[in-house]
Amino acid sequence: MNGIEILSEQVCFGGVQGFYRHASTSCAGPMRFAVYQPPQAARGRCPVLYCLAGLTCTEETAAIKAGAQRLAAELGLVLVMPDTSPRDTGIDGATGDWEFGEGAGFYVDATVAPWSARFRMHSYVADELPALIAAGFPVDTTRSGLCGHSMGGHGALTIALKHPACYRSVSAFAPIVAPSQVPWGRKALPRYLGDDPAAWAGYDACELVRRQTFPGTILIDQGEADRFLEAQLKPELFDQACAEAGQSLLLRRHAGYDHSYWFIASFIDDHLRHHAAALDLL
Amino acid sequence: MNGIEILSEQVCFGGVQGFYRHASTSCAGPMRFAVYQPPQAARGRCPVLYCLAGLTCTEETAAIKAGAQRLAAELGLVLVMPDTSPRDTGIDGATGDWEFGEGAGFYVDATVAPWSARFRMHSYVADELPALIAAGFPVDTTRSGLCGHSMGGHGALTIALKHPACYRSVSAFAPIVAPSQVPWGRKALPRYLGDDPAAWAGYDACELVRRQTFPGTILIDQGEADRFLEAQLKPELFDQACAEAGQSLLLRRHAGYDHSYWFIASFIDDHLRHHAAALDLL
Repeated sequence: MNGIEILSEQVCFGGVQGFYRHASTSCAGPMRFAVYQPPQAARGRCPVLYCLAGLTCTEETAAIKAGAQRLAAELGLVLVMPDTSPRDTGIDGATGDWEFGEGAGFYVDATVAPWSARFRMHSYVADELPALIAAGFPVDTTRSGLCGHSMGGHGALTIALKHPACYRSVSAFAPIVAPSQVPWGRKALPRYLGDDPAAWAGYDACELVRRQTFPGTILIDQGEADRFLEAQLKPELFDQACAEAGQSLLLRRHAGYDHSYWFIASFIDDHLRHHAAALDLL
Repeated sequence: MNGIEILSEQVCFGGVQGFYRHASTSCAGPMRFAVYQPPQAARGRCPVLYCLAGLTCTEETAAIKAGAQRLAAELGLVLVMPDTSPRDTGIDGATGDWEFGEGAGFYVDATVAPWSARFRMHSYVADELPALIAAGFPVDTTRSGLCGHSMGGHGALTIALKHPACYRSVSAFAPIVAPSQVPWGRKALPRYLGDDPAAWAGYDACELVRRQTFPGTILIDQGEADRFLEAQLKPELFDQACAEAGQSLLLRRHAGYDHSYWFIASFIDDHLRHHAAALDLL
């Protein structure tokens, strides 16, 4: 279908959990993604939630570990879970570092060679993938939401803030909100985008929200036992930026929870309901 | 605690998902297991459900893929998920074959050397592990249930039928019910137990139920698109054996579902509720 290769499709909660591959133009090579189609998708178009994963993760991570299919099946919500970067790029330095390169695309369109040839995850997630999904799956493109975890939370926030008309809802688990100011971003962004901080600001949620707010409440869940909280995540920076920009934000802090999918699974239902409400499913 | 080494403990649905290791006497070496403690376990003893995994699986498989923690947290049910065999045994032939040896203990006490020294998963699951759990975790030992998948379903059925006073409830997903009659069992049982079919019968649910029934309805879910259904699983044999023995059985067949954890996740809540009812949680 439409250049999409089916790697596997299995029945799950009355719907279909599938894994797919296609030739991406944005990333100039094959890209993998997972889709969960709820039972309602067999009878008509359903709203769609894009779920962006974090560092080291793939299209399988959220599909296997988040436990989102149960409620998605009940609500009638399609889930789309892309990989976090192109793979097998053959670019020198693209593997071997979990914070940069393959598995660490940071949802930017790289402008610095050699990364600029393949690492264009912003265009991939914001443009190419939705068009592919619209053509290949029964989704209602007027009802899309976006969520993500950690680096994927950064992806969700930045893409929603750059394209607020394309998504009705956005949420994140333990997102990187200020990559320009934290070690993960300060390491990756200059290599992808060059040394000018102005280029980083285009992919920094704290900067973007000052330029344009998102028309709806942003939901963020953060574990207080998250080992990346103080140095890398700094949700207080986004809290402050939203307050100053007039952006509605629901930032929830949860004692005892860490950065893992045990945390995500614990609160994924709240996120699905947040999106379902904005997507007219509740 | 009590000889139990904590490998990790993480907050999940308000409870604790932990991974542990201890020195097993039954298996003459280290064994790993996972425990999920619901929030109620912080305040008092909770009933416990043992979950036995299938071929190739470990203590991580059900913990990560089944999605059982959500409802266990709501019900107040402890989940215990052991590994499927001893590991790193160094026994010649113990690795390299997914149907026999490490990862394929078949929940028997081997009587044939060299397996008899280490592969004693029946005693481990039926005796040693419950005693360890009772000493180290807040469980109510008078309220225990047992479930399993595939080879683990075989383990759940045979252990419950051999020790019906120890468990209030038993259920299985796509279990091996007649290992004496199917290729998986015909390959593994002679190597663990010798060539006398009488020894195999002691670990064959279809044979055991004719000797002693279980005091309660056995719940079995089976996917009709399971590629092992016809050659290895043959639930109709157990259906017939239960009918002849007067054993109450609820065997549900589900169109489209296969042998995977996508199937298990889809129906795990029904199994937890089956156990919760017998364990006086509903």
